[in-house]
Amino acid sequence: AGYYGIGSQIRSISVESLKPSDTFPRRHNSATPEEQTKMAELCGFETLDSLIDSTVPKSIRLDSMKFSKFDGGLTESQMTEHMKYLASKNKVFKSYIGMGYYNTYVPPVILRNIMENPAWYTQYTPYQAEISQGRLESLLNYQTMITDLTGLPMSNASLLDEGTAAAEAMAMCNNILKGKKKTFIIANNCHPQTIDICKTRAGGFDLEVVTADLKDIDYKSGDVCGVLVQYPGTEGEVLDYGDFIKNAHAHGVKVVMASDLLALTMLKPPGELGADIVVGSAQRFGVPMGVDSSGKPALRMAMQTREQHIRRDKATSNICTAQALLANMAAMYAVYHGPEGLKTIAQRVHGLAGAFSVGLKKLGTAEVQGLPFFDTVKVKCADAHAIADAAYKSEINLRVVDAKTITVSFDETTTLEDVDELFKVFSGGKPVPFTTASLAPEVKNVIPSGLTRESPYLTHPIFNTYHTEHELLRYMHRLQSKDLSLCHSMIPLGSCTMKLNATSEMMPVTFPNFTDIHPFAPTEQSQGYQEMFDDLGNLLCTITGFDSFSLQPNAGAAGEYAGLMVIRAYHKARGDHHRDVCIIPVSAHGTNPASAAMCGMKIVAVGTDAKGNINVEELRKAAEANRDNLSALMVTYPSTHGVYEEGIDEICKIIHDNGGQVYMDGANMNAQVGLTSPGFIGADVCHLNLHKTFCIPHGGGGPGMGPIGVKKHLAPYLPSHPVVATGGIPAPDQSQPLGTISAAPWGSALILPISYTYIAMMGSKGLTDASKIAILNANYMAKRLENYYPILFRGVNGTVAHEFIVDLRGVKNTAGIEPEDVAKRLMDYGFHAPTMSWPVPGTLMIEPTESESKAELDRFCDALISIREEIAEIEKGKADIMNNVLKGAPHPPSLLMGNAWTKPYSREDAAFPASWLRVAKFWPSTGRVDNVYGDRNLVCTLLPASQVVEEQAAATA
Amino acid sequence: AGYYGIGSQIRSISVESLKPSDTFPRRHNSATPEEQTKMAELCGFETLDSLIDSTVPKSIRLDSMKFSKFDGGLTESQMTEHMKYLASKNKVFKSYIGMGYYNTYVPPVILRNIMENPAWYTQYTPYQAEISQGRLESLLNYQTMITDLTGLPMSNASLLDEGTAAAEAMAMCNNILKGKKKTFIIANNCHPQTIDICKTRAGGFDLEVVTADLKDIDYKSGDVCGVLVQYPGTEGEVLDYGDFIKNAHAHGVKVVMASDLLALTMLKPPGELGADIVVGSAQRFGVPMGVDSSGKPALRMAMQTREQHIRRDKATSNICTAQALLANMAAMYAVYHGPEGLKTIAQRVHGLAGAFSVGLKKLGTAEVQGLPFFDTVKVKCADAHAIADAAYKSEINLRVVDAKTITVSFDETTTLEDVDELFKVFSGGKPVPFTTASLAPEVKNVIPSGLTRESPYLTHPIFNTYHTEHELLRYMHRLQSKDLSLCHSMIPLGSCTMKLNATSEMMPVTFPNFTDIHPFAPTEQSQGYQEMFDDLGNLLCTITGFDSFSLQPNAGAAGEYAGLMVIRAYHKARGDHHRDVCIIPVSAHGTNPASAAMCGMKIVAVGTDAKGNINVEELRKAAEANRDNLSALMVTYPSTHGVYEEGIDEICKIIHDNGGQVYMDGANMNAQVGLTSPGFIGADVCHLNLHKTFCIPHGGGGPGMGPIGVKKHLAPYLPSHPVVATGGIPAPDQSQPLGTISAAPWGSALILPISYTYIAMMGSKGLTDASKIAILNANYMAKRLENYYPILFRGVNGTVAHEFIVDLRGVKNTAGIEPEDVAKRLMDYGFHAPTMSWPVPGTLMIEPTESESKAELDRFCDALISIREEIAEIEKGKADIMNNVLKGAPHPPSLLMGNAWTKPYSREDAAFPASWLRVAKFWPSTGRVDNVYGDRNLVCTLLPASQVVEEQAAATA
Ligand SMILES: Cc1ncc(COP(=O)(O)O)c(C=O)c1O
Ligand SMILES: Cc1ncc(COP(=O)(O)O)c(C=O)c1O
Ligand SMILES: O=C([O-])O
Repeated sequence: AGYYGIGSQIRSISVESLKPSDTFPRRHNSATPEEQTKMAELCGFETLDSLIDSTVPKSIRLDSMKFSKFDGGLTESQMTEHMKYLASKNKVFKSYIGMGYYNTYVPPVILRNIMENPAWYTQYTPYQAEISQGRLESLLNYQTMITDLTGLPMSNASLLDEGTAAAEAMAMCNNILKGKKKTFIIANNCHPQTIDICKTRAGGFDLEVVTADLKDIDYKSGDVCGVLVQYPGTEGEVLDYGDFIKNAHAHGVKVVMASDLLALTMLKPPGELGADIVVGSAQRFGVPMGVDSSGKPALRMAMQTREQHIRRDKATSNICTAQALLANMAAMYAVYHGPEGLKTIAQRVHGLAGAFSVGLKKLGTAEVQGLPFFDTVKVKCADAHAIADAAYKSEINLRVVDAKTITVSFDETTTLEDVDELFKVFSGGKPVPFTTASLAPEVKNVIPSGLTRESPYLTHPIFNTYHTEHELLRYMHRLQSKDLSLCHSMIPLGSCTMKLNATSEMMPVTFPNFTDIHPFAPTEQSQGYQEMFDDLGNLLCTITGFDSFSLQPNAGAAGEYAGLMVIRAYHKARGDHHRDVCIIPVSAHGTNPASAAMCGMKIVAVGTDAKGNINVEELRKAAEANRDNLSALMVTYPSTHGVYEEGIDEICKIIHDNGGQVYMDGANMNAQVGLTSPGFIGADVCHLNLHKTFCIPHGGGGPGMGPIGVKKHLAPYLPSHPVVATGGIPAPDQSQPLGTISAAPWGSALILPISYTYIAMMGSKGLTDASKIAILNANYMAKRLENYYPILFRGVNGTVAHEFIVDLRGVKNTAGIEPEDVAKRLMDYGFHAPTMSWPVPGTLMIEPTESESKAELDRFCDALISIREEIAEIEKGKADIMNNVLKGAPHPPSLLMGNAWTKPYSREDAAFPASWLRVAKFWPSTGRVDNVYGDRNLVCTLLPASQVVEEQAAATA
Repeated sequence: AGYYGIGSQIRSISVESLKPSDTFPRRHNSATPEEQTKMAELCGFETLDSLIDSTVPKSIRLDSMKFSKFDGGLTESQMTEHMKYLASKNKVFKSYIGMGYYNTYVPPVILRNIMENPAWYTQYTPYQAEISQGRLESLLNYQTMITDLTGLPMSNASLLDEGTAAAEAMAMCNNILKGKKKTFIIANNCHPQTIDICKTRAGGFDLEVVTADLKDIDYKSGDVCGVLVQYPGTEGEVLDYGDFIKNAHAHGVKVVMASDLLALTMLKPPGELGADIVVGSAQRFGVPMGVDSSGKPALRMAMQTREQHIRRDKATSNICTAQALLANMAAMYAVYHGPEGLKTIAQRVHGLAGAFSVGLKKLGTAEVQGLPFFDTVKVKCADAHAIADAAYKSEINLRVVDAKTITVSFDETTTLEDVDELFKVFSGGKPVPFTTASLAPEVKNVIPSGLTRESPYLTHPIFNTYHTEHELLRYMHRLQSKDLSLCHSMIPLGSCTMKLNATSEMMPVTFPNFTDIHPFAPTEQSQGYQEMFDDLGNLLCTITGFDSFSLQPNAGAAGEYAGLMVIRAYHKARGDHHRDVCIIPVSAHGTNPASAAMCGMKIVAVGTDAKGNINVEELRKAAEANRDNLSALMVTYPSTHGVYEEGIDEICKIIHDNGGQVYMDGANMNAQVGLTSPGFIGADVCHLNLHKTFCIPHGGGGPGMGPIGVKKHLAPYLPSHPVVATGGIPAPDQSQPLGTISAAPWGSALILPISYTYIAMMGSKGLTDASKIAILNANYMAKRLENYYPILFRGVNGTVAHEFIVDLRGVKNTAGIEPEDVAKRLMDYGFHAPTMSWPVPGTLMIEPTESESKAELDRFCDALISIREEIAEIEKGKADIMNNVLKGAPHPPSLLMGNAWTKPYSREDAAFPASWLRVAKFWPSTGRVDNVYGDRNLVCTLLPASQVVEEQAAATA
């Protein structure tokens, strides 16, 4: 059955052949039916199905999967129509809600050339520096922007959202004091979602969060590790925290400040006020409202990424996969506008807020608060709800703080006419005797002179050069051309599922009726979103065998944390306060112990047997030994070793028998969909990495999404939100939410269309085929490679799951070759390395995914085989053990065409080791980057231009 | 006055500062006010304005320009809102009109990565082969697709539209017979617009076009040079032309066939039927309906491009600027679908037409024609208008052929449900007792077996490999990475105005409410378009000083032709049938004489003086000598030599005094807008290259647009259209149209938003500034370069216009260096060459445009200065005259990192002659292409795969 199902010439016509022909699964799934059979045969099976039957344990194999909606799959054009229909159900009101989310103009050149450009959203996290110089420069711009604006010396590149960043800062305060002071104070002028996330998070650290009015904050207890304040406050006030901070420091208390980047172009920066840590969101710097990315600058924090791999349960954070897209967009927004441009925007926003305040005073229908403000005006009135209702009728959203208080937040997109409309609302229908424009002469900058920003920012040439569209376009293009992405070749990172991010999936993400809705807008306005959430929740339930889903967690690890917190809440609700032991196999991903630790759980590790499987007897003993305190098991399936462990159902039973719950890490769902499911296997809760299995770009792309699914008994505990009511989807009968996990009620809602359209276009059969082909592709590659490299683990029938591990420990002994050498040499062949030395040191883990064609798999195998031959030359003594094509890799053009060539191998052997490279080659932009040197010589912001020139001169000398 | 107009800290606020800040002119125009002054000073002027005052002759200088709409310029976001509003005024009905325009699904991966990707739409025409290998491969794919589907051995890459292609074929028939047979017959089964364009065009060739029913065609007169038939016919019929063609050939008559690519996947190809020339449109291969691109395969036709430069009035065509975008899209559509996929689509369309015909027969309310059809069903009924009206109520457009005849054309986007809707319309409100799906078993393929396609097509691996999204994405990306575009660096082609194609301008082009409207849809459905046409017409009138515009011509040269035909019609209407002399300066662009010749005009050349200006006395003599027969002068302003000739007003007066009309070639309008205007100078008609001055991408982009503006007395003669009423905008009091110029009433309407948004966002001041800065940039570069190269022509005050000529004839003598050597060496510096050896052999003409920053101009000057130093090395004898960095250029990586290096200069001198190349470098993909060899060894389709492998092996050996 070919995909077209039609012979070359027909005489009579089938209904099937009259159906729309722009079907999607054949565009996503690579292997044609003929190729499937050929590849299965090479693996020793007659058909793909027999390979699958021998691979997935019978005891957990599902007969079939059936969706109540989209089961047959929509075609690409049907999908686009459907998404337009959903978009039309969303109603875009003018929003003055603020609370951390502001409308913004994404400069069209950034929209088209970054946000809508696969060369920017399909790369992997920039671990391989030589083929990631573009993003690394952009992220350095981002960090420079954050440090400049906040006045702190160091920044990281991005966290999940502002609330999560605040919680991370709280944890940092706790850690700095080694957990000795157990109170964290949050001022009441913080956003409510920030407060709730910190409260939820505090539980796991055994911290007490106290909220208080600023004026009531004291440290008399002597037990306070940190305090969080907001600047400007959630209701707009701009306060001078100078003395407040001095006082806190005098008591040994760290001060965390939540702030707003745009305001900081006009306000004295937190660093100058003395703040220790600043958190905030860069969303209003050209990132649509439906997503969020926060900067978390911090003294003494660097190289946080993946520390959980090393530190496991001692990790201070579980944040893992990079989501650079939004940081890149925000950085480019700053590059395009420059310091003057940003200040112009800020002054305009401040001016509009000022004009509004002047006008309201003239109208006399409401009382404007007396405190200085930046963009948010606080208003006292007789009946806040009546005014909000009137606004609503004019398609305007205001924030009602309480029965007599309203706030109005202005942003880059507000116009003079918009303010006129607001006056109409506040005048209660009476004619307004002035226009906003006419008020201008009376408007004053109300920022107190002591808080006026004097220090310069964004003085680096990068922020002062690319201000025309051509200049920015070329700058972005120059950076883009340095980065390898899925536009070039497969990126077969084990455990990362770098699959196709199809254009039809990406298109709705930039539909204005999705981008322009405030996350806290009343749900009547987001009916298109709501329909999608409901459908997606149901589809994910079918796929996972669960009963309810929460779409709140913004990453896989956030899902782990949320899922464990659900389990914790469940035990507590049953009076099992003591259940705090979490069993985690040593083969688990580092985020698992990190997340468990963040929930305050005690971790008990269990080992693996020689075949890489969990040692079931050891697990049984651990479970029984901890039966009274057992909270959960965390288990990844198929295992992180790329194997469908046969004992998985037994493992689940053991845990349940001992009073525990099974948490399944869904990172490997790409090997389950349609073939088995976490629910069917016996798990109670599981997260999905939508940014792996369900096509959301990650690494260069993002943000991520790690929704969790649960069995019925856990559904009541799914997270809620302080501003917008939410909980499990479908909704459980009753609810006792664990608290709040993310700043927005449905996480990064704007990117959910990607997973939704993927599922709806694939249909149940397309998705099941995807799992089968993902497995087929991995087995095909393992088969092709097994004569060259040992394949580390396999299932009972000799097959692997959707990924497999190539063992390089042998060639370390015979030829001194490390995984890094192979990884760097792969760049010369035009490829990104597989996952290195995880989960087993000295190995590479390869995950091809279903959307890579046989031709591409073959090319990758050819590269690895050719590299094996290069290694053999060393083994045979024909190549030098210290100075060979692998140790010298990657070879950038500057080296290859240098006048001097001192290598013992030839330039062409270095540059063109495979024939396809003659047709087109991706060039690494530098030679091997010295990681050890880099770690010792941290540079976290752009160097001053003078120094750059010097270094360049040195580099090219 | 900086662009922001706001100091670094304000206390009181101006209304100005509260207006939206996302203004556009500062993104388009490069130089900041400070830079403007600095650059003017370098040129010897105190200010930019004094430079301009000294450059533009006072006698033609306008005080100011003022628009009745958009005078202040919209901001980018206001513009997008306005375009959404216009889009919402367009109503997208289901179209079954056919007539050469069909709805199609643009595969999203092609939409995003080609049509919406500046790296594909901002390159120049691929004259510089070494940095255009991507497009060249894609265009070869296109030509292969056309030859395969038509069954002819050779094809060109694209013409303007199907109607123009037919007219070109007619001209070719005339030329083949050396103009000896003066009748061209067109069968009545051709599209009406095709017939009208040919009729209009025939006038100039002194050909007689005769239309006749197929059965009545005979060649008895002995005077027939060719015959045009359509396959399938405009009303759908599929006829076997085998005997018809034999008969024509027996009479020495060439047969031109208009055909449909999709139909040819199922029908015996024209080549097998014996056709000599095939014309058609590739629009339905994934190109939105609002634009059109045609393939014109032909025996004995190659290297047509630019032949007008060489052959001038003997040229057989005036088609000039390449517009490759649509051809690239259509080619990628074929690559993505492959032969099987295309056939599936064709069979489905045919099946739906068949189902419709079966159903209509069952309904019995109308009579289906008996002839075989492919996608168009012809129906006889009692009252065609009544049925069309009923359809209209269901938002369906049908084609009413006559009072009792309707045709219904199906396409890729038609669904079973759509056909159900049609049955409802035809049932006159009565219930339809069947569904389309239920009819399927009764539907038969109705293509006669003798006309069934047997021959294979698209067998080359390129059409059989890239069928998944990842594979196509990477293939497109691979090609893209070989082509230099405006994403990399300035492309300073004199006379070509390669300026910024801003994203805000490009975005509306892919709004569905613009793309999905059939060009012949009733104008009530295209009210958004109509508003834009009206506004654009008015704006262009203000800009040019004219009274009425026609938006029909699809290119500058098409505008020239249309404008001269207007003049011809004007003279004829006044009884001046004899006025047929056209005076053209020798400095004119080659399209001018070519267009004049196509109008049947006699060309009288006038020379230039030593300063490059038109010799006014010679012109006066020519005008007076021809005063009785003088039709027109064609003149470019500023001149093609880059100078504002002082005598231009006198020149216009001389022509008028002698009874002639002044045709101004508007290619250089970028130096006029806001400063002077053709109308003000004294021209009667002028074309605008919207794809130069008004931002439509050309070269890699396209299609082009060459609307013409006229003075009041010429307005009645502007072209009309046989299907949709149109004429001058604003409409003149009366009309006597010259005929039809293009297949669609308003040309490539879909790309007009680009020029419209450019003008509306710039406002009158922004546009005037653009002209000033364009002139400034040219003068700045000329100044920086004058100490290194002679600058050929200058105006009376020593300044140049918006472009200038660098003379290389000296270095030919001193160092053997040709313009080509400099052009190729510029590639090593990362630049595209300026216009080579036009208008003066041995020179380069540089046009920087206003959207290039000073930094970019400096980089380009630095490159040319550095090259001059390289030339000096030859002059000094330090470098070999035959074997040096210039003669060896460009240097591709394969050469630079080859094991052997035999050049007398170093690899690094070859690769990195400037410091910026160390930061990022665009690599030419091959060494210098041998044009002479290429001309002698024409390859017009893809080689069979076997041969490719051999050649590759040879190339890498
Ligand atoms: C097995 C496994 N679990 C959990 C995670 C964490 O997911 P995230 O990076 O989305 O937080 C990963 C991420 O790579 C993973 O591979
Ligand atoms: C001076 C001049 N006139 C006419 C034309 C013809 O315009 P088009 O290529 O759009 O037909 C050109 C094109 O480059 C030109 O430079
Ligand atoms: O493109 C030109 O022929 O100028």
